[in-house]
Amino acid sequence: MIYFDNSATTKPYKEALASFNKVSTDFYGNPSSLHRLGGQAEQLLLQAREQIAKLLNVQKGEVYFTSGGTEGNNLAIKGTALKYRDRGRHIISTAIEHPSVRESMEQLKELGFRITYVPVNKHGIVSIHDIEKAITDDTILVSVMHVNNEIGSIQPIKEIGQLLKRYTKILFHVDDVQGIGKVPLHLHDNHIDLCTISGHKFHGLKGTGALFMRQGITITPLFSGGGQEWKHRSGTENVAGMVAMAKALRLTLDKQEINQNRMAEIKDFIRTKLEMIEGVQIHSPHLQSAPHIINFSIKGFKAEVFVHALEEKEIYVSTTSACSSKTQKASSTLLAMGVPEDEALSSIRISLAYDNTLDEAKKLVEEIKEAVIRLRKVMN
Amino acid sequence: MIYFDNSATTKPYKEALASFNKVSTDFYGNPSSLHRLGGQAEQLLLQAREQIAKLLNVQKGEVYFTSGGTEGNNLAIKGTALKYRDRGRHIISTAIEHPSVRESMEQLKELGFRITYVPVNKHGIVSIHDIEKAITDDTILVSVMHVNNEIGSIQPIKEIGQLLKRYTKILFHVDDVQGIGKVPLHLHDNHIDLCTISGHKFHGLKGTGALFMRQGITITPLFSGGGQEWKHRSGTENVAGMVAMAKALRLTLDKQEINQNRMAEIKDFIRTKLEMIEGVQIHSPHLQSAPHIINFSIKGFKAEVFVHALEEKEIYVSTTSACSSKTQKASSTLLAMGVPEDEALSSIRISLAYDNTLDEAKKLVEEIKEAVIRLRKVMN
Repeated sequence: MIYFDNSATTKPYKEALASFNKVSTDFYGNPSSLHRLGGQAEQLLLQAREQIAKLLNVQKGEVYFTSGGTEGNNLAIKGTALKYRDRGRHIISTAIEHPSVRESMEQLKELGFRITYVPVNKHGIVSIHDIEKAITDDTILVSVMHVNNEIGSIQPIKEIGQLLKRYTKILFHVDDVQGIGKVPLHLHDNHIDLCTISGHKFHGLKGTGALFMRQGITITPLFSGGGQEWKHRSGTENVAGMVAMAKALRLTLDKQEINQNRMAEIKDFIRTKLEMIEGVQIHSPHLQSAPHIINFSIKGFKAEVFVHALEEKEIYVSTTSACSSKTQKASSTLLAMGVPEDEALSSIRISLAYDNTLDEAKKLVEEIKEAVIRLRKVMN
Repeated sequence: MIYFDNSATTKPYKEALASFNKVSTDFYGNPSSLHRLGGQAEQLLLQAREQIAKLLNVQKGEVYFTSGGTEGNNLAIKGTALKYRDRGRHIISTAIEHPSVRESMEQLKELGFRITYVPVNKHGIVSIHDIEKAITDDTILVSVMHVNNEIGSIQPIKEIGQLLKRYTKILFHVDDVQGIGKVPLHLHDNHIDLCTISGHKFHGLKGTGALFMRQGITITPLFSGGGQEWKHRSGTENVAGMVAMAKALRLTLDKQEINQNRMAEIKDFIRTKLEMIEGVQIHSPHLQSAPHIINFSIKGFKAEVFVHALEEKEIYVSTTSACSSKTQKASSTLLAMGVPEDEALSSIRISLAYDNTLDEAKKLVEEIKEAVIRLRKVMN
């Protein structure tokens, strides 16, 4: 089996799963319990938090545990909006955000907020000037993803952070679900106030995530209750899941540089080979491009047909993002980039992880070539 | 080690953890991915949903997966309030709900909702008449827990369901986090619209839960995004966690009757022995009482002192609920029952699971007796 759908989800590290088992079996206490079994769980949770904080170069009090990327994005956006709604009701985001950001924005509209979606250029990258132009006295939040989940374009987070530094009323949220472990990002240096990560995108377990929230910020919780996570996210903590996520993040970041280079090499190989196939249009940009995502269309083929053709060879790739794959709609990211709808409907995403090899990429390219020939014959 | 804090959290079944491992290792695909690995994950998720639906005697389309009890309660309450806010802005609950219910209510006050907290009698039980009296034309939701988490009192859910059947505008939510697997409850027969359960309270894993939502009901999601769980709870599904929860629920309900009787027997033993100790006041009711919780105070001792004294003997019990144990406040449930504050501050909760034994109970009682003598000596 060759798995090239790592932006949808990744295979958990054995070590992360082992940690999960150890904690679930031997340290299953509730961190809120006063006795030793509770204390041990609390201690493990604290260690996981400290480890993640250290890996992200932030304070341990700035790491809030969540159930994943969607929760993190919803909490950051709705929590900010509800908390600061008396300060202003305007939010800026982009045309290419993940559904968990976009739909949070749409939901806020019903509560009286105005949203500006800044466009992207043909490379899928927002302009700092467009963001600046969109700012009003009423703006309380800017939410921009770091790495786009469909084409891998890298947004100018540093420049946006520099810009927003001058607007003390505006919080800056970054969805880094696709970027973490692939493209380095310094949270404090870039004046980021809130940043979302998700465990299962870097070989941790599903149902785990974290929201970085800069010290001094408070937002309205989505989950009220026992007051866990400094009252920002109540609920018995998934201790085993968070310990596993800390382990996965360490394993990922320890080898980030090596793996980044390996993935970029494999991606470049795939790109070069794909460009030689007639009718292939590459959507991922050349520059400001993450090392693990390459998105392309093959003229005349619906994406699903291709996904299934490759699947028969035990190669797993995806159409657009996993979250949107069943809607049969064209990718909103590609449309925002100006890709025509029929081309967008035939787009395929290949997404790499640390354990993909050049041999797998060679096999992929061969099978794509063969599938194109075979399917073109069928169609003629 | 003797663990008597099962209302805080339980030790996961080996079988549930084994399922989690199997799915995480072999079926790690994203259920939203179109390829076979995604399809397998989707299939497993469906099976877990069907199994849970069957165990709860409901339809599979009525089971929504969540990250746990706090999420379920928040989603049910806030989701209903936000969805039907134009229908009315009054909600009825009780004085003894879990913080995740109470704090959700308090948060809704800020959005303009009025909350009536119905009182309880000295046994910790609400009166159906008080609920009826509280109903106004503006009422859209009644939320009552099934089994109280601190003293184990069972609320008259059946009667409340019968009452609310006559009010088609009002939704009925039941927090069954402490009841499931301990005290049978039929959801449809009792006209329940929404019901919360949490995996780690019945030997599943932390970070897993489900919300039953009767067919035809829609509420406003807390997590918007990819549209999972019929758009009511977006986010990549924790497939392994849900499979493990389904397994845990089956193992729990398969032996519910036997275990219920065993727990009740052990509880009665503890109760009888405790009543013989001078200065002990039992707070759990005799009637309408769950088989697994017994709550009591020992005059003159702070609860923590006792928790730690027992801990030295490797016996784990708790002060009030885990979620409130660190606030040093007297239990709001006990105060609502009319227990004086100093007595409430010395209350201890013993909570059983299927694997506790009568020998453990004997040891517990002996150690409590000894601790009382020892601590009284120290104090004199």
